[in-house]
Amino acid sequence: MPTTNRQIHLAARPVGFPMESDFRLVEAPLPACGDGQFIVKTQYISVDPYMRGRMNEMKGYAEPFQIGQVITGGSVGTVTESKHPGFKPGDVVQGMWGWQEYALTAGEMCSKFDPTLAPISTALGVLGMPGMTAYFGFLDICKPKAGETVFVSGAAGAVGSLVGQIAKIKGCRAVGSAGTDEKIEYLLKEDGFDAAFNYKKVNDYAAKLRELCPKGIDGYFDNVGGPQSDAAFSLLNPFARISICGQISMYNSTAPEVGPRLVLTMLLIRQATATGFLVPQFAARYPEGIAQMAQWIKEGKIHYREDIMDGVENTPKAFIGMLNGNNKGKQLVRVG
Amino acid sequence: MPTTNRQIHLAARPVGFPMESDFRLVEAPLPACGDGQFIVKTQYISVDPYMRGRMNEMKGYAEPFQIGQVITGGSVGTVTESKHPGFKPGDVVQGMWGWQEYALTAGEMCSKFDPTLAPISTALGVLGMPGMTAYFGFLDICKPKAGETVFVSGAAGAVGSLVGQIAKIKGCRAVGSAGTDEKIEYLLKEDGFDAAFNYKKVNDYAAKLRELCPKGIDGYFDNVGGPQSDAAFSLLNPFARISICGQISMYNSTAPEVGPRLVLTMLLIRQATATGFLVPQFAARYPEGIAQMAQWIKEGKIHYREDIMDGVENTPKAFIGMLNGNNKGKQLVRVG
Repeated sequence: MPTTNRQIHLAARPVGFPMESDFRLVEAPLPACGDGQFIVKTQYISVDPYMRGRMNEMKGYAEPFQIGQVITGGSVGTVTESKHPGFKPGDVVQGMWGWQEYALTAGEMCSKFDPTLAPISTALGVLGMPGMTAYFGFLDICKPKAGETVFVSGAAGAVGSLVGQIAKIKGCRAVGSAGTDEKIEYLLKEDGFDAAFNYKKVNDYAAKLRELCPKGIDGYFDNVGGPQSDAAFSLLNPFARISICGQISMYNSTAPEVGPRLVLTMLLIRQATATGFLVPQFAARYPEGIAQMAQWIKEGKIHYREDIMDGVENTPKAFIGMLNGNNKGKQLVRVG
Repeated sequence: MPTTNRQIHLAARPVGFPMESDFRLVEAPLPACGDGQFIVKTQYISVDPYMRGRMNEMKGYAEPFQIGQVITGGSVGTVTESKHPGFKPGDVVQGMWGWQEYALTAGEMCSKFDPTLAPISTALGVLGMPGMTAYFGFLDICKPKAGETVFVSGAAGAVGSLVGQIAKIKGCRAVGSAGTDEKIEYLLKEDGFDAAFNYKKVNDYAAKLRELCPKGIDGYFDNVGGPQSDAAFSLLNPFARISICGQISMYNSTAPEVGPRLVLTMLLIRQATATGFLVPQFAARYPEGIAQMAQWIKEGKIHYREDIMDGVENTPKAFIGMLNGNNKGKQLVRVG
């Protein structure tokens, strides 16, 4: 039994692209379990693009992380000790305790995960936040209909890969973008995308999208923003639906980027709708999403990839690598 | 009885702001009425901002006007001769025959107007396209709830003025922008807006809107786009709804404008929805909108203003003046 709880704190707010020096490994004492609480030993930590936003001091989004505090975010682990009536030792629990080996919690933002559905790491991926993001953010907002064309920017990420697969289940043409040829291979050969392009090797996104989406774009699931969105908006069909899931192209910008004033004009002339969402708005319906995604996994209709790095001390490296696009699947850190 | 039908043709596609030389007065022969047709004598012609878009060669919007053809758009008049079973002499009809003194039609895009509801000029305003634009574009897309704050850009226009009044009927705080102090007076004293500002006299739109919308913006009805939209988007509340009705600040641009890449990011972090619309999508529900607007007029809850210029030959001047913001109410041309 260890005597310390290794944690990663935010040491400084990153300026532009994060550096490892923006984070600090801290050895804290093991927590003691009080009444109504339980202790969970972390098994996997999730690193996700949205966490970059929380490292800024920005109003209106999720609360900013605080300097000198543990970075919070999705984690899954096993209860080791409990004085909470709802959780007992051995329960697999996912929650938001974040980048640390042990967490003391009264159960806020925690839920039990059924390990018979799929490996417990999926609680952070296809059956967790990224999976729910894809499921609800795509189906509820893009409202795909068979025969339509769906474009997914950032399609090789944990969310985008699932959106493309769900688009295929719904009978759509799925077109994606990603940043390496290897990822394009995955999209086409494993995820079943009909077409995909490496945005780092294409200059004219609009021309490429016109080629890959000859019938225009009915649903656009946007993880990226910026010039890829400009191109996608120019190809919208009447009554197109755009789901704004992320704007990763701008997360590390230190100054507001400029671009053509195109979005509102295209929404107008194509009578289209763009909706931004944060997945917690769908929390009441997660059971529906988890059950459907688990069934699709069992039927072989949805598959998933994981990239695993070992050791809580490597979480900043995993996070930075994920922002760099180094991962091929959902980036996780395995602890202990 | 006149022997000619004076018409205004598009002489050249305007480059930037339209000039009178982009239009030509043509004396055509009076049309002869064939079976299944009727002739209508124009009484009022409507000039509207969206018509500027149709003067360009732009794909995807309403069909572009053709050079050498009569400019079409909303008009109202009286049937003078009919061989059509659905229309008889004396019927008041509104339709899209546009900038000419007489029109021959088989009734396409025409509907009878009940002159007992309100003066027939309202068929082109509060009970016509601008009224339906305000009614459906605001209520269906902004979904206003009592106590919310609604910002209307271009609030003194035929549509914006009605949107503000409907917002007040729904119990919202209504805030508007317009381009002259006289229009601001109208908004505050006649239309019942709670606050309004002259965008030509304010430098920092965001600071002004923060002052006038202390609780943020829940509904944004956008006629204008550009920097006013940047400011409005920065103040959106969670789950705000944005109705994109027009982008008049850009209609005369000869090159794509640039601005901060703000819209998609703000939609994301505020979980907001922006929807563009063209009012014909609501055509099946116009009777509902006309009945409700007529009732509100009778109850004194909605009032309207008209600016009337006389003579079909002055229609280009009325149109250009409207784009310049010279009018104080719905700009009409009275014919004959």
